[in-house]
Amino acid sequence: MAKPLGEFDFIDRFIKAQAALGQPMYRRGDALGIGDDCALMPPLEAGEQLAVSTDMLVEGRHYFSDVDPKALGHKVLAVNLSDLAAMGARPLAFTLAAALRGLDPTWLEAFLSGMLALARDAQCALIGGDTTGMPANGAQVFCVTVMGAVPMGQALRRDGLCDGDDLWVSGSLGDAAFAVQHRRDDPKLLWPAPRIALGLRLRSLAHAAIDISDGLHAEIMHLLRASGGVAAQLDWDSIPLGPRVQQAVREGVLSATQATVIAVTGGDEYELLFSAPPECRTEIRDLAMQQGVALTRIGEVRSAGGPSIHWHHHDGRRVDAGVVEAIGHGGFTHF
Amino acid sequence: MAKPLGEFDFIDRFIKAQAALGQPMYRRGDALGIGDDCALMPPLEAGEQLAVSTDMLVEGRHYFSDVDPKALGHKVLAVNLSDLAAMGARPLAFTLAAALRGLDPTWLEAFLSGMLALARDAQCALIGGDTTGMPANGAQVFCVTVMGAVPMGQALRRDGLCDGDDLWVSGSLGDAAFAVQHRRDDPKLLWPAPRIALGLRLRSLAHAAIDISDGLHAEIMHLLRASGGVAAQLDWDSIPLGPRVQQAVREGVLSATQATVIAVTGGDEYELLFSAPPECRTEIRDLAMQQGVALTRIGEVRSAGGPSIHWHHHDGRRVDAGVVEAIGHGGFTHF
Repeated sequence: MAKPLGEFDFIDRFIKAQAALGQPMYRRGDALGIGDDCALMPPLEAGEQLAVSTDMLVEGRHYFSDVDPKALGHKVLAVNLSDLAAMGARPLAFTLAAALRGLDPTWLEAFLSGMLALARDAQCALIGGDTTGMPANGAQVFCVTVMGAVPMGQALRRDGLCDGDDLWVSGSLGDAAFAVQHRRDDPKLLWPAPRIALGLRLRSLAHAAIDISDGLHAEIMHLLRASGGVAAQLDWDSIPLGPRVQQAVREGVLSATQATVIAVTGGDEYELLFSAPPECRTEIRDLAMQQGVALTRIGEVRSAGGPSIHWHHHDGRRVDAGVVEAIGHGGFTHF
Repeated sequence: MAKPLGEFDFIDRFIKAQAALGQPMYRRGDALGIGDDCALMPPLEAGEQLAVSTDMLVEGRHYFSDVDPKALGHKVLAVNLSDLAAMGARPLAFTLAAALRGLDPTWLEAFLSGMLALARDAQCALIGGDTTGMPANGAQVFCVTVMGAVPMGQALRRDGLCDGDDLWVSGSLGDAAFAVQHRRDDPKLLWPAPRIALGLRLRSLAHAAIDISDGLHAEIMHLLRASGGVAAQLDWDSIPLGPRVQQAVREGVLSATQATVIAVTGGDEYELLFSAPPECRTEIRDLAMQQGVALTRIGEVRSAGGPSIHWHHHDGRRVDAGVVEAIGHGGFTHF
């Protein structure tokens, strides 16, 4: 068993791990990274403003205790980068606070390598942090605050839905929730890929966007409420199912309806849900090809009907009322 | 017993509490507060850069479980504002993440009122957050990330100590640690006042600064190491003792030596420690009068001797070696 580290050794390791991976060190004249009371950010480019988001992950609630620490390090940052992606913001920097039961250097190296590899890919520098002890029976907690830049007035907000907009979703849904239910490993659950490049391109196409952390149904409701109570008409048969969920249907583990319920209610997806006017369909399909990511049109926005979701099948039939009711109760909540 | 709240009710309460207290709502055209994937900060003033700091508070380690929730709300923000003060930064905005065992509305109202009253006084807007559940046996955790603005090149860093600088400390020391040892309430422990106005004025006077969260001795060592290994000559008899500690000496509860050891090693003070050239003494004493805060010169910086602290009495005698050794082991660490 490796020797436990003290707090300041931990900070030193962060700095060294960051340097080893070629991160920007924020040691230029106008910027300052880890090691002072505050970090100092370099100035933004002209016309940009700062986007800020914070997310907390709690052991046993957001991840299993025996998770691969490298995957955990990746995920703690990824869920925050996903919020930047949903605003169309370019990642700049992040802080990490952690409450740990102890400091095992082997675990820590793996955690850091996962986190900092994603930070390097996303061009997002670790600029500050705080580490503290958690009593032996306490759940470990990680909190990342991420900062990005977006041209003034171009951020993708939740309140921009317009009557007649198409609703689109990136990638596929359901595999993360299915993996949690069956306590299986799944790349979608362990290594979510924040849709940063997609978010940047959507700035000129989308009216509104959100990332799917609480489940598609819950996120659509967030958009509808933020946009003043418009309604959504959604095509049940268009929901893109993840490969694991599709396989479970083929093997008879799930019915087709169960599979779509999981896809519509399952959290932890970190895909983007966005709205765009119908005249952008060709551009959006071109974008999907360019970026190699599926973009699926799942329905449309209607101004009548209040903040509500109306599900129908591809042939126009309404989805069974019992199924719709189950979906209304199935979103992931943090309590 | 009041009804527990869900996560989204909790966020709604935040927004309403903030509005009720007259906080800037970040609902102007160029800014966005709570309720989207990210907050959007208004642009900084020309020539400013962003200072960022994060701090995590864990129940049972940084505060007692039965603490007044209003005081806790104040303190969670205050310790972060203290980091901005130590950089000479003007507060702008903060995010709050919380892992809670449940959501009791009465407790929450009090927590919020304490936090948002300080936010209003400090002109620092709550712009985003994350709330999550903690298992019933877990310690509650709060994480604040604070952002401030500082003119480029004027931030008070740790690495600016110069040979011959005076070392100064604001306020008095020891009462917070004494209150923890004796499980007593003390305003210093419960309601720390971040030295924001002092930090802003020190930008034109100080060479280096840090806030005292881990104890004076530990913070001086941070400054010495960051500044390339200069040494400090400190006057043991000049250390300003808090009123409670002074009273304990008068009552014979503490010896004079014990009192100073507590003052030198005790954490949780949130006073500023700074260095400035001797020609600034008059200006610093004027500043103390203007702001109504004690500023005490406790020693000086010497380039010889490596990163080490040399204690002497007012009459030049060295401080007892056993006392000095005890101090070296007495700083507060988070593990």
